[in-house]
Amino acid sequence: MSLTSEAVRIGVAGLGRAFVLMQGAFHADPRVRLVAAAAPRAESRAAFEDQYGGAAYDSVEAMCADPEVEAVYIATPHQMHREHVEAAARHGKHVLVDKPLAVTLEDGTAMVEAAEAAGVQVIVGPSHSFDAPVRLARDIIESGEFGALRMIQAFNYTDFLYRPRRPEELRTEEGGGVLFSQAVHQVDIVRLLAGGMGRQITAMTGDWDPERPTEGAYSALIGFEGGAFATLTYSGYAHFDSDLWMGNVGELGHEKPADGYGAARRALKELDPAREAALKSTRTFGSATPLRTPEHHEHFGPVIALLDRADLRLTPDGVEIFGNETREFRAAPGTDRPRHGVLDALVDAVRHGRAPAQTARWGMASLEVCHAILRSAKDGGAPVRLEHQVKTDHGETSK
Amino acid sequence: MSLTSEAVRIGVAGLGRAFVLMQGAFHADPRVRLVAAAAPRAESRAAFEDQYGGAAYDSVEAMCADPEVEAVYIATPHQMHREHVEAAARHGKHVLVDKPLAVTLEDGTAMVEAAEAAGVQVIVGPSHSFDAPVRLARDIIESGEFGALRMIQAFNYTDFLYRPRRPEELRTEEGGGVLFSQAVHQVDIVRLLAGGMGRQITAMTGDWDPERPTEGAYSALIGFEGGAFATLTYSGYAHFDSDLWMGNVGELGHEKPADGYGAARRALKELDPAREAALKSTRTFGSATPLRTPEHHEHFGPVIALLDRADLRLTPDGVEIFGNETREFRAAPGTDRPRHGVLDALVDAVRHGRAPAQTARWGMASLEVCHAILRSAKDGGAPVRLEHQVKTDHGETSK
Ligand SMILES: NC(=O)c1ccc[n+]([C@@H]2O[C@H](COP(=O)([O-])OP(=O)(O)OC[C@H]3O[C@@H](n4cnc5c(N)ncnc54)[C@H](O)[C@@H]3O)[C@@H](O)[C@H]2O)c1
Ligand SMILES: NC(=O)c1ccc[n+]([C@@H]2O[C@H](COP(=O)([O-])OP(=O)(O)OC[C@H]3O[C@@H](n4cnc5c(N)ncnc54)[C@H](O)[C@@H]3O)[C@@H](O)[C@H]2O)c1
Repeated sequence: MSLTSEAVRIGVAGLGRAFVLMQGAFHADPRVRLVAAAAPRAESRAAFEDQYGGAAYDSVEAMCADPEVEAVYIATPHQMHREHVEAAARHGKHVLVDKPLAVTLEDGTAMVEAAEAAGVQVIVGPSHSFDAPVRLARDIIESGEFGALRMIQAFNYTDFLYRPRRPEELRTEEGGGVLFSQAVHQVDIVRLLAGGMGRQITAMTGDWDPERPTEGAYSALIGFEGGAFATLTYSGYAHFDSDLWMGNVGELGHEKPADGYGAARRALKELDPAREAALKSTRTFGSATPLRTPEHHEHFGPVIALLDRADLRLTPDGVEIFGNETREFRAAPGTDRPRHGVLDALVDAVRHGRAPAQTARWGMASLEVCHAILRSAKDGGAPVRLEHQVKTDHGETSK
Repeated sequence: MSLTSEAVRIGVAGLGRAFVLMQGAFHADPRVRLVAAAAPRAESRAAFEDQYGGAAYDSVEAMCADPEVEAVYIATPHQMHREHVEAAARHGKHVLVDKPLAVTLEDGTAMVEAAEAAGVQVIVGPSHSFDAPVRLARDIIESGEFGALRMIQAFNYTDFLYRPRRPEELRTEEGGGVLFSQAVHQVDIVRLLAGGMGRQITAMTGDWDPERPTEGAYSALIGFEGGAFATLTYSGYAHFDSDLWMGNVGELGHEKPADGYGAARRALKELDPAREAALKSTRTFGSATPLRTPEHHEHFGPVIALLDRADLRLTPDGVEIFGNETREFRAAPGTDRPRHGVLDALVDAVRHGRAPAQTARWGMASLEVCHAILRSAKDGGAPVRLEHQVKTDHGETSK
């Protein structure tokens, strides 16, 4: 498995910010190799050929047709995920599609069907539900060591809304705002820990900055089959920073600089608004400086899971267990292998036909919750029943 | 006002744990003087006469009839609050009644009517809504300096359920569990900050320890008039301790010992269950060692309030303001005068006829929210409309 000749050969669709964030993981893992890319911009293609020596296409369809490509990582904007997953499926390629699965449930349904008809695996990721401390917490819960899971509290306060954005990233109908890009992580984490089967949700959302008119915050209360419940809270308005309660470690696992307060909003304020999308593209492949290897695992803000005989607090390094009489810390291994959980899943899917929890149907279920938050909020906090939920299943094997 | 001759002369009903917690405040404040007490146990009465030289009665009614008494602090168990408030009102005495106002809304309504008919002020307190950082945060919100209030997140993880209890403190119908004794604080704080007028709430509760079969945890999502919303989360199951995120300062403002983890549950485990109520009484007046003066203000767990241009984080010393571009800290004065907010309110009410926000009607409104949490949870998280809410009013003057 560690021989290059057996490495899973990956084609990348979209050489933007998401790809920059995945590069370190691809480099660190001998089980995968980047062999092709698809990107509309010539300079991105040239940079890819330069750095990886693979084939660079100007269309995803053409890349998917390349017989060298075994699996496709789709890192294009949300609204294109369906078209690109369908292209991969048509060519019998397995897929890793960045979260969210899609913007609409209609697209999501079509993608599930395309994948199943073609017999390819579709993994929705990276998502913070693959973070090693989340998986460790899930293992602890499943082990039964501390009894049943009862309640989860997850929250995250970030500067999401003030990072440079493409215009559609600020239009809710097109998948903009914090629901589709951020809630989907939190929902993934909470569903993974709680067993997956959300039953009902009530929520309120905040759309508070007229200059960035989309949801920037929400609070939701979700009930699960079996009786556990969870609160999910998020603000992307760049004020309080909950990383203060995560050892001052940022989302990507890096220790945060002491003087970083307010940086996102300040940078944006100094910018000609017409140049915002251009600024975003300076953070993409070929322009961005590569990220340094993080000292810790990635995370998505404080998560506390209450069990009968212990509460688990997720940290950027593992899980702190507050038991009946003692506290202990369990480290999550592999900080030197960033995002190895996602690549474990991909290699398992391609080489062994084993699906992770985060399948296309799983992605639909998390997407449904995001839509349900929007709907409940629109209806003044009315309960919304969930209809597309699936269980947290590991190692399900395809035929 | 600082002359003893003008001090408000207080009679205390109930010399239990709550009185022990108030003693430091009474001692530190020259504007009040303890002149009488009512307690069923002879040794408590003797200890009171010994320490304060006042008159000790075996009935609250008799104490209320004492012309020396100007105002009554009612610190008897929840279910007796109505009877004792009515006694005070009958004798024309102003009242400070410990939270919650009552257990049932029927009792609450009767108390509001009794107070209004007699023309006496009824203040529901102490409650953590009187904590100096809460009042500072409310002042900042009211000032408009950072725009409108949008969202609040409040949570608290304590060992409440494992402190020694009277039997009825573990029976929900009699006011036991975390709703009536703990949620009421959190609801008071959140209502005070949000302007008071809750509109609708959804909630789930946890009753997870068969040996202490009452609600030990909850999560709730509440919408306010004007559109702000809040999540309230609480666990009293003695695992994760949220004071870790309050500078390791406990509820009463003391720095917590490093080796205290698990102490409440351990103490209880070593106890003959039949002796639990007796253990509680060792923590009451005459038996308990007096509390040392806290280094910080009291608090009720992390509270974050989101405004348009800043998030406020309450700390045991004041309010941290996370603004658009900078962070700043504003200290709440008076750590050397414990609970001075409550006594400010009492002196103001008795001497100047000015009511604080926390009137009997206010207490009804917070009690209503506690019942609504129970009801919503019973109905699987269905929304409950709130009908008894009142505004956060300061300095309302009685006729
Ligand atoms: N930005 C992040 O931090 C981040 C993190 C994780 C996941 N994601 C996810 O990754 C996806 C992409 O987001 P992003 O932030 O990287 O956006 P981005 O704009 O930085 O990158 C998208 C890239 O797709 C390319 N593209 C557009 N149309 C294409 C086409 N037809 N064929 C091939 N490439 C095409 C663009 O040129 C661009 O480089 C989103 O679904 C997002 O949720 C983003
Ligand atoms: N325990 C705390 O930390 C705490 C803190 C704040 C507020 N409170 C509130 O104070 C109230 C009392 O709770 P507690 O924990 O102090 O209980 P407790 O049992 O310690 O004290 C109650 C006291 O009332 C006395 N009492 C009973 N019947 C009486 C009567 N008819 N006349 C006069 N006294 C009578 C009892 O002898 C006892 O000393 C409750 O409403 C509670 O919510 C308690």
